[in-house]
Amino acid sequence: MQANINKTNQKRVIIIGGGFGGLKLARELSSSNFQVVLIDKNNYHQFQPLFYQVATAGLEPSAISFPFRKVFQKASNVHVRVAEVSRIDAAANCIQTSIGEIEYDYLILAIGADTNFFGNQNMMKYAMPMKSVSEALSIRNTILENYEKALVASDEQEKQALMNIVIVGGGPTGVEVAGTLAEMKKTVLPKDYPELDFSLMQVHLLEGSGRVLASMSEIASEKAKQYLIDLGVDVSLNARVIDYDGNTVTLTDSPAIHTRTLVWAAGVIGNKIEGLSPEVISRGNRILVDKTNKINGYSNIFAIGDIALMKDETYPNGHPQVAQVAIQQGELLAKNLKALSAGKVMKEFKYKDLGSMATVGRNKAVVDLPKIKFQGFFAWMVWMFIHLMSIVGIKNRLLIFINWAWNYITYDQSLRLIIKPKTKQ
Amino acid sequence: MQANINKTNQKRVIIIGGGFGGLKLARELSSSNFQVVLIDKNNYHQFQPLFYQVATAGLEPSAISFPFRKVFQKASNVHVRVAEVSRIDAAANCIQTSIGEIEYDYLILAIGADTNFFGNQNMMKYAMPMKSVSEALSIRNTILENYEKALVASDEQEKQALMNIVIVGGGPTGVEVAGTLAEMKKTVLPKDYPELDFSLMQVHLLEGSGRVLASMSEIASEKAKQYLIDLGVDVSLNARVIDYDGNTVTLTDSPAIHTRTLVWAAGVIGNKIEGLSPEVISRGNRILVDKTNKINGYSNIFAIGDIALMKDETYPNGHPQVAQVAIQQGELLAKNLKALSAGKVMKEFKYKDLGSMATVGRNKAVVDLPKIKFQGFFAWMVWMFIHLMSIVGIKNRLLIFINWAWNYITYDQSLRLIIKPKTKQ
Repeated sequence: MQANINKTNQKRVIIIGGGFGGLKLARELSSSNFQVVLIDKNNYHQFQPLFYQVATAGLEPSAISFPFRKVFQKASNVHVRVAEVSRIDAAANCIQTSIGEIEYDYLILAIGADTNFFGNQNMMKYAMPMKSVSEALSIRNTILENYEKALVASDEQEKQALMNIVIVGGGPTGVEVAGTLAEMKKTVLPKDYPELDFSLMQVHLLEGSGRVLASMSEIASEKAKQYLIDLGVDVSLNARVIDYDGNTVTLTDSPAIHTRTLVWAAGVIGNKIEGLSPEVISRGNRILVDKTNKINGYSNIFAIGDIALMKDETYPNGHPQVAQVAIQQGELLAKNLKALSAGKVMKEFKYKDLGSMATVGRNKAVVDLPKIKFQGFFAWMVWMFIHLMSIVGIKNRLLIFINWAWNYITYDQSLRLIIKPKTKQ
Repeated sequence: MQANINKTNQKRVIIIGGGFGGLKLARELSSSNFQVVLIDKNNYHQFQPLFYQVATAGLEPSAISFPFRKVFQKASNVHVRVAEVSRIDAAANCIQTSIGEIEYDYLILAIGADTNFFGNQNMMKYAMPMKSVSEALSIRNTILENYEKALVASDEQEKQALMNIVIVGGGPTGVEVAGTLAEMKKTVLPKDYPELDFSLMQVHLLEGSGRVLASMSEIASEKAKQYLIDLGVDVSLNARVIDYDGNTVTLTDSPAIHTRTLVWAAGVIGNKIEGLSPEVISRGNRILVDKTNKINGYSNIFAIGDIALMKDETYPNGHPQVAQVAIQQGELLAKNLKALSAGKVMKEFKYKDLGSMATVGRNKAVVDLPKIKFQGFFAWMVWMFIHLMSIVGIKNRLLIFINWAWNYITYDQSLRLIIKPKTKQ
C-alpha cells in the first residue's frame, strides 16, 4: 500500500519524530523547496522539560503539548502524518509505516530515546516511566488514586506503601519530581487529606552514582542535594535497586522501602527502527553519524538528537542527550540539506553548550552557564523565564504563566483530577 | 468490611453523587452539626453545561472539573470518598460500597442520570455519549483520529464517513455540539487539514420531535434552527434513527448517512441503585419523592436532582432534569435536614424557574427568561456571563475566560490534541 501524499517535483524529506530536533528541522525547512513529511506517533509536539509538572498536578498536558498541524498551518510544503514507522528500506529509498509505504529523497531519523529499564522485567511491569505526557498523566492519576486508597486502607504498612513515593534516578527529572512531591507533602496534600497522617509519607530519591545532577557542576549537585534534604526528601546516593514487585523496593545496602508508586527516571535508550545495518547501532541503541549527522555508510539518511551518536574531540563519547543538541543539529541539518541538494559542501556540527539547569522547588534552582554558576532564587527565576520562552505558542505561554503565578501565591497544585478518556470496550 | 470513617457524635448524612445537587447540599451542610460523607465515582465535580466545549477542543477537561477535596479543604465535617455504591440496606441504615459498608442517619441520593440508548444495543456499542468529561474527551479524541484517518483513506465514501459527524438529539447539548462543529468546518479544520476537501464534510443534527430545543419557547427553537442552518448544519426534524453499525446511520424516511462519528444526545435515564422498593421507581428510572424530596415510604432517605421525580400542580410529570432544579433542591434539603434533626417541620419545595438558554455559535445564542425572550449577540453575552459565573473556582473562571477570548479573536479551538494517559497492560 502506498501512503496518500501528493507527488510534487520537489525533493521529499521525511522526518521521523517531532521532538525538539525533528520539529526544529521541519520548521527550518517549512519555507524551502523541499516537500517535507513529518511523521510522529502523536499529533502534537511534547515539551519534555515540564513533564514533571504534569506528573505532579501543576500543569495540564495541553499546556505543554502543541498540535503539529497548528505549527504548520501556513506551510503548504509540510505534510504531517500520525503513524508508526516499522522499517527503513534503504535500497528502495522508502519506509514502511502504519499508513503505507512512503518514498523519500532524504530521510531523517529524529526518533529520540525512551526509558531504559536495563532489562529488569519487574521494573518494566511495575515502575512508572515519564518519557511522554501520557506517561506523566498516568503518574498523576496513580498518585491521586493511591491517596484515595490510603484513606480506606486498614493496616499501617499498606497505608505507608500507598503514601510513600520512590523516585529512581537523580538526574534533572528525578530531582524535579522529588522536590515537587516533597513540597506537596508539606502544603497541599495534608489539606486535601486531613484524615491521613503525613508523618507516614516519605519521598525517596535513589541515585546510583555518587551525586545528583551528575551531568552538572559539583556545586550544582551539592546545592541541589541540600535543597532536597531541606525539603524533606530522603536522598540515597550510590543506591543500587535490585528489584520491585509493585509493593516493595529491594536495595543492596539499605532496608527495603514499601511503595506503590515508583517513578523510574534512571536512564534512556534509543528508540529502535528496523532496516539499518547493524554496524551503525552503538551503545544505548544510538546511531553512529558523521559530523554532518549523516549515518555512516548511507548517502541520504541522517539522524539527529538523542538517537544520534556523533563523536568529536570535545565529546569523544557523543553529545549529552539534551534538547539543545537536538535543536542545534536540526537547525544545521536544514542548512546542510539545502547545500547538499544544491551540490554545495555541508558544514560540520559543533555543539554550542548554552549551559544546563534544574529546579528543585519554590525559589530553589541550580544553573550552570558556561561562564557562571549560580543557585537559589535568581536561578529559579532564570529557570522559569527560559522555560516559559521555550514553550511553543503564545497561549500556552500565557496559561503556564498564570498557572505558575497562581501556584506560587496559593501553594496549590490545582489539577488534582483523576481524568481518563472513557473507552468503548 | 466497614469503611474507614471516624465516628463522631454528630448525625451522619451520606450524599451519593457530587453533581449540581449533591455538591450544593454538601456545601450548605459544610458548617453544620452533621457529619457529611460525600461519595462519588470521581474525585471531582463536573460542570455539565460545558461538556460540549471539551468535545469540540475548546476547553480542557480540567477547566470544567473541580476536585471535591479542594472544595472541602476547610470543612472538617465533610468526608470525601471516591467509591461506587452497590446497594442500600434501608432496614440497617447502611450502604454497601466498593470501599466497604457505611452507616447513615440520613441518606441522600443525588445520583443523576446517564445516557439513554432506549435499549438499542448497536447504539450502545457504536454511538458516543456525552454525559461525563471523560466521554467528552473521548469524542474529541475520536473526531481528531478520524480526521487523521481521512487523510490516508483511499476511497471517497470512506473519507466522507470519517469526516461526517452525526448528532442525534436536538436538545441544548446536540445544538451546541452541532453548531460548534459546523463553525470548525469553516474555520480551523480546513487550516489543519489543507489536503482534505471539506465539501465532503457534513454536520447532521437529527431530532425526533418537530423542533430543536423543544423545552424552550417556540421563538427560541425557531431562531436556533435558523442559526444552525446558517452555519451549514443539516437539520432533520421528526427524524427517526433505526440503527447504526459504526459506519452507516439508517433512518425511516431519509437516505442513510455514512459516518464514523455519531454523538448520541437523545435522552437520559436515571442511574440505578439497588435496594429501594420497586414501587418508588417511576418513568425513566426516576425515584418518586414527596415535596420535601423524601422518598415515598422511607423516613430518612431522600433523592434530589435528575434522579428525583416530584409531582406538583405546575409540574404534574416532574420537574425538568436541569441543573437549577438540582441546586434548588439541594439548598432546601440542607435547611430541611437541619429542621428535621431539630424536630421542626420541613418546608415544601417550590421550583423557581430562572429560565433557560442555549448557545449555537459565535454571537449566536437563545435565552428564555421568565419575563423576556431574546436571541443573538446579547443572548450570547448573557450565556457566557452566566456560565462563567457558575463555574467553581476563580482560577478555572480565569482560564476559561482567557480560552474564550482567545478562541473568539483567533477563530481557533486550540486543544486539538489526542492525549490519553498511558496504561500498563
